[in-house]
Amino acid sequence: MFNRVAFIGLGLIGGSMAKRIKEIFPETVITGTAKSQLTIDYALQNNIISEGSSELKKVVRDADLVIVATPIELIVPTIKKIAKLVSERTIIVDVASTKGQICDQLKKYSSKFIGGHPMAGTEKTGIINSAANILHNALFALTPYKQTPKLKLQKLKDFIEKLGMRCKITDPQTHDEAVAGISHLPYFVAAALLLNADTQDKKELAATGFKSTTRVGESDPQWGLEIASTNKPAILKELNSLQKNLNILKKYISTGNKKQLLKILKNARNIRRSIYP
Amino acid sequence: MFNRVAFIGLGLIGGSMAKRIKEIFPETVITGTAKSQLTIDYALQNNIISEGSSELKKVVRDADLVIVATPIELIVPTIKKIAKLVSERTIIVDVASTKGQICDQLKKYSSKFIGGHPMAGTEKTGIINSAANILHNALFALTPYKQTPKLKLQKLKDFIEKLGMRCKITDPQTHDEAVAGISHLPYFVAAALLLNADTQDKKELAATGFKSTTRVGESDPQWGLEIASTNKPAILKELNSLQKNLNILKKYISTGNKKQLLKILKNARNIRRSIYP
Repeated sequence: MFNRVAFIGLGLIGGSMAKRIKEIFPETVITGTAKSQLTIDYALQNNIISEGSSELKKVVRDADLVIVATPIELIVPTIKKIAKLVSERTIIVDVASTKGQICDQLKKYSSKFIGGHPMAGTEKTGIINSAANILHNALFALTPYKQTPKLKLQKLKDFIEKLGMRCKITDPQTHDEAVAGISHLPYFVAAALLLNADTQDKKELAATGFKSTTRVGESDPQWGLEIASTNKPAILKELNSLQKNLNILKKYISTGNKKQLLKILKNARNIRRSIYP
Repeated sequence: MFNRVAFIGLGLIGGSMAKRIKEIFPETVITGTAKSQLTIDYALQNNIISEGSSELKKVVRDADLVIVATPIELIVPTIKKIAKLVSERTIIVDVASTKGQICDQLKKYSSKFIGGHPMAGTEKTGIINSAANILHNALFALTPYKQTPKLKLQKLKDFIEKLGMRCKITDPQTHDEAVAGISHLPYFVAAALLLNADTQDKKELAATGFKSTTRVGESDPQWGLEIASTNKPAILKELNSLQKNLNILKKYISTGNKKQLLKILKNARNIRRSIYP
């Protein structure tokens, strides 16, 4: 579908997407750059990209699709540079976890740039942990502008679906509010649970339940800072809402209101079963 | 080590332990009872137990070890009955998630009963989901009395270790306070997170992170009621402590204190890495 796909940033997500594109479209030329020359070399040596350079210009030249997978704070300045280097037919998409600020600041580039967020990943980071299969059946959110060319959006959507992901087209605000609840909040909650595991007895008795509940707490703390600063109001709203739920649970536990506690615990279980049938 | 082992209750934990004992000690006669005749029949037909009955007396007769794996609220009355039916040499152990109330109410039976809690399980319930391998390398907490016969404790410990689990000998209070933090708190927090996933957009975007963070929220709500009523003060203390941590996170997020936020997120990650290296 695309003759040349360029990756700016080759971490867990960039690396995984490059690997998946190679699986599905082996004839596509994949180029890439990364902050560290070591990463570029690793990607070349392991055949994850076929052309690599530390020069942005060389990497995006003639690209039909540019996937920007840098840390959140670099997305906007990087895309501003790329937009000037590529032709009018090129599509630029990012993979950042928050979309509001980014899409707002890149409105000017609506003929080329489409906001994106693949809801995939693990608590690990780096190209070394990248794997095509983490994208399998994942949801890829796209937050186009009103001015986004219809054909470009359709082409990007088709491409993502051919990679085995599902597309959800939404707006940046809806996206940011939703991920605040189901991705950012769980991360901060996992951190709070871990900080609470403050005795040797707790650490020793911690089993598989605590392990899965806190898995996302091992995510890159830099990512934590980035979502905290780029999605602050939504995250604070979700934290307040969670604390309200915790207060209700506390009330039923402390008063021994078994009927209401059972109702709320069953309700929670049903919500999980409806999300993950 | 034991010629006859009796199971009172054949759910996820009872069934898994019976399967594991059969693997390691194929010559041991395993007997069992359960609330439902269907469960007893299933256990017999699938060779999980070799003798089954709805009569407690028949099941525990001549048992060297009785493993009581009923819901928490039935542990005390069941063990009081069993203690009268078995000989002085018999060891009785339970598998309940809280130990304080149970061990307190069964002090009189300290020559036979030892409190136990295998830190294993999944969010599933029932013998149908039981599997020997969920016990692999799990921690089995034992909370003996001062009066517990040394030889019985040693024999039980050896047996558990031969089944491939690790033993931690502790007291009921220490146990209950620790599990409040690393097992009961995560369960209620998972419930609160699920109740917060209250929009269609959140449900649609929920990915693998939310899935693992909320996995324990699918545990049996009846178990939730039981821990809430038998470990109330410790759970409330942990909920308060978690809310303090959440307030600290909220403060750093809302004021944009990146330095302190990074420090606390790194600290949380380090705690997880120290628990699960």
